[in-house]
Amino acid sequence: MVRNIQRYSQVRNPGKGHLIINPIMVGGIIPKGVQRRLLDDEWTRTGYAVCFDCLEGRSSLIRKPNIRQFLEDVAEFLGGDMAEHSFGCRAAQFAVMKAVADSLKDRSKSYGKIVVADPLCHYTTNIATEMLGFKLVMPPPGHPTSYKVNAQGFRDKVEEIRRESGKLPALIVVTHVDPYYGNLNPVDEVGKIAQEYGIPYLVNAAYTAGVMPVDMKAMKTDFLTVSAHKSMASMGPLGFLVVNSEWSERTFAASKSVKSMGGQALTTKVPSLFGCSVGSTPLISTMLSFPYVVERVGRWAEELEKTRWFIRELEKLGGIKQYGDRPHRHHLVHFETPIFWEISQHHKRRGFFLAEDMEKRGITGVQRGLSKHLKLSVYGLSWSQVERVRDTFYEIAEEYISKHHLNYNIPIKSEVPEKGAAEKS
Amino acid sequence: MVRNIQRYSQVRNPGKGHLIINPIMVGGIIPKGVQRRLLDDEWTRTGYAVCFDCLEGRSSLIRKPNIRQFLEDVAEFLGGDMAEHSFGCRAAQFAVMKAVADSLKDRSKSYGKIVVADPLCHYTTNIATEMLGFKLVMPPPGHPTSYKVNAQGFRDKVEEIRRESGKLPALIVVTHVDPYYGNLNPVDEVGKIAQEYGIPYLVNAAYTAGVMPVDMKAMKTDFLTVSAHKSMASMGPLGFLVVNSEWSERTFAASKSVKSMGGQALTTKVPSLFGCSVGSTPLISTMLSFPYVVERVGRWAEELEKTRWFIRELEKLGGIKQYGDRPHRHHLVHFETPIFWEISQHHKRRGFFLAEDMEKRGITGVQRGLSKHLKLSVYGLSWSQVERVRDTFYEIAEEYISKHHLNYNIPIKSEVPEKGAAEKS
Repeated sequence: MVRNIQRYSQVRNPGKGHLIINPIMVGGIIPKGVQRRLLDDEWTRTGYAVCFDCLEGRSSLIRKPNIRQFLEDVAEFLGGDMAEHSFGCRAAQFAVMKAVADSLKDRSKSYGKIVVADPLCHYTTNIATEMLGFKLVMPPPGHPTSYKVNAQGFRDKVEEIRRESGKLPALIVVTHVDPYYGNLNPVDEVGKIAQEYGIPYLVNAAYTAGVMPVDMKAMKTDFLTVSAHKSMASMGPLGFLVVNSEWSERTFAASKSVKSMGGQALTTKVPSLFGCSVGSTPLISTMLSFPYVVERVGRWAEELEKTRWFIRELEKLGGIKQYGDRPHRHHLVHFETPIFWEISQHHKRRGFFLAEDMEKRGITGVQRGLSKHLKLSVYGLSWSQVERVRDTFYEIAEEYISKHHLNYNIPIKSEVPEKGAAEKS
Repeated sequence: MVRNIQRYSQVRNPGKGHLIINPIMVGGIIPKGVQRRLLDDEWTRTGYAVCFDCLEGRSSLIRKPNIRQFLEDVAEFLGGDMAEHSFGCRAAQFAVMKAVADSLKDRSKSYGKIVVADPLCHYTTNIATEMLGFKLVMPPPGHPTSYKVNAQGFRDKVEEIRRESGKLPALIVVTHVDPYYGNLNPVDEVGKIAQEYGIPYLVNAAYTAGVMPVDMKAMKTDFLTVSAHKSMASMGPLGFLVVNSEWSERTFAASKSVKSMGGQALTTKVPSLFGCSVGSTPLISTMLSFPYVVERVGRWAEELEKTRWFIRELEKLGGIKQYGDRPHRHHLVHFETPIFWEISQHHKRRGFFLAEDMEKRGITGVQRGLSKHLKLSVYGLSWSQVERVRDTFYEIAEEYISKHHLNYNIPIKSEVPEKGAAEKS
């Protein structure tokens, strides 16, 4: 018998009430009104929350609530032709790789079982290639200090593969914004190269679709993978796979083996979606949040302004330096933070002091144990909250500078721009 | 631009306030107190609800909340050695097939790429075999009217495969309770056969683990796949894969390709779990519900009593007949319902009248369009609610018998047994 089972009804949320500055979380924060609707309208009542009116055996085809229309609207919003929801961006990438792998059998023999991806792709891209037996190759980082990839690197790699194997890679993958430095990759230029060679092309928009403008047509991409829990103000796990018309049939091909009780083929079950991707409460959360998401994407310029202001303020402190794109073009920011590393050398909690001190002040999202470099985001915070995050870093620095007589100064704080106006929105 | 976008904030739940008798939903109904905790403790606030204290890059290893301990307790509760959460039972089955497929390379050549499964397995078993390129073969149904499989059929099929190919199947799959008739399959006997031949063995407990006692040791099964949104009072999508110690390493083998930014192997990322199965709010919902789930499994006898009482009452009406196991041993019940089929012939809504009339009376779960045969469940309802479901079927029948002068009688209703006592619980 399981011991102390009652403790499970007492599980506490360590992030409750905190400001969140963890870059993987900020785009997935669900508006309070949506959360309340989920409870009040009983969307949290059952594990099959959307299936009361399922007629065809796949949640993406349900009309009540109108998931079918919603997926069309998601596709349109992102410049694609067809969208299906998935168990997250990782499952969407898997579905793409599966479709591409299966297509190799039918297509001309000029494609090898090789994927070319950017060197800072998310680990789930590695996993998807590994699961489907692709060889994964990467062009070198294009720039020694910004870590940016450049499009030319993809062209060179394709040529190299062709030279060595006589074949083209089966797929090119570019992560729209990489998860390490928040660099915006040259997706449009790589799209032109992919098109020129006739190589299928996937853009992983896990960090972008739902927070900043994304247009598959401009990217000339065949596939777009999206994380709803990362960037669409949605409960997890949920993602979307958006495809263009050329790839929609192949990608969402029906199962050949599933039969009804009467022995008829059930043509609505799609293997790449595990038959049906269930959807459930996460899917409703993303529908309820959709008007908010579309609206906030329209305010991306203001979000970038907050991010850049925050970078400037943090860079005034103790040698802190932002890595990657300058000016920065995404909310995920990676800082080198020598001052906090130096403090950690004096602290009995070592590198853990920073996350812990931030949490004591009600801010969560600094990765535990890290003090030498940090990934942060102030996306979605109000100007006052951005100011508070800046103030908190300054305050913690000040405490230890004074305590350990460190050779740093606390900088003069800048005012936030147009605070009054921005706060009203 | 997406039109009428504001409608998405107004999406309505068609099942709100209804009694639920849909067999896929009843085991996944989340206690009201758990739903409230999800909102109040901010578990519905972000898409990465459990990741505030992630140290190792996989949600199943998190200690705060104690997911690691929880998974050990889930394994213990089901008689297994190790559990991981997954994107549903379908993803868990996929992980099993992947592990078995990968193992064929290393193991003796006596295994062919063939899976033997029961003929009434869930469609997701077909999908998993299809995704991994297994040939799926099935013994014939063992009984012409109950549709039950019998263990001997598995032995015969294994022998047949061995005779024809000189190899053993790579895996035997039995669905603990099938999703069509709710028959309890002879999982213990098949387990003995699998062990005798040395064939890996999977029991799909999507409809059982979390509603009735399940013990992997008694089944002698290597793998157990579980649906949390179907049977563990949990938000979807979520499932569990429980394995015995012999298979745990192979099944949850780390990625060979995922590296940290510094180039070290990240040994916590498991390809079969898509690196990390996220978990998020569904995972917390199943943790909060776990004490309730363990407690209700202890009341399984009473639940069966309700089901059997309901079957007896429905079978008094207009030639209605329950298919499958008699006495019935699961809450999913499939009825042949000639009276409702006859009514549908007179009704302008045809087969749709029944679901619609039930819904008008506040009961949801009869599949739209069906009247000739129905899958229902009264699992988890109080005795009064079971009575109300019976009364509602009688009432609808009575209305049309009288309207169309049909040749049926409305039966005398039986009292529910020990109503007073049962209601207190």
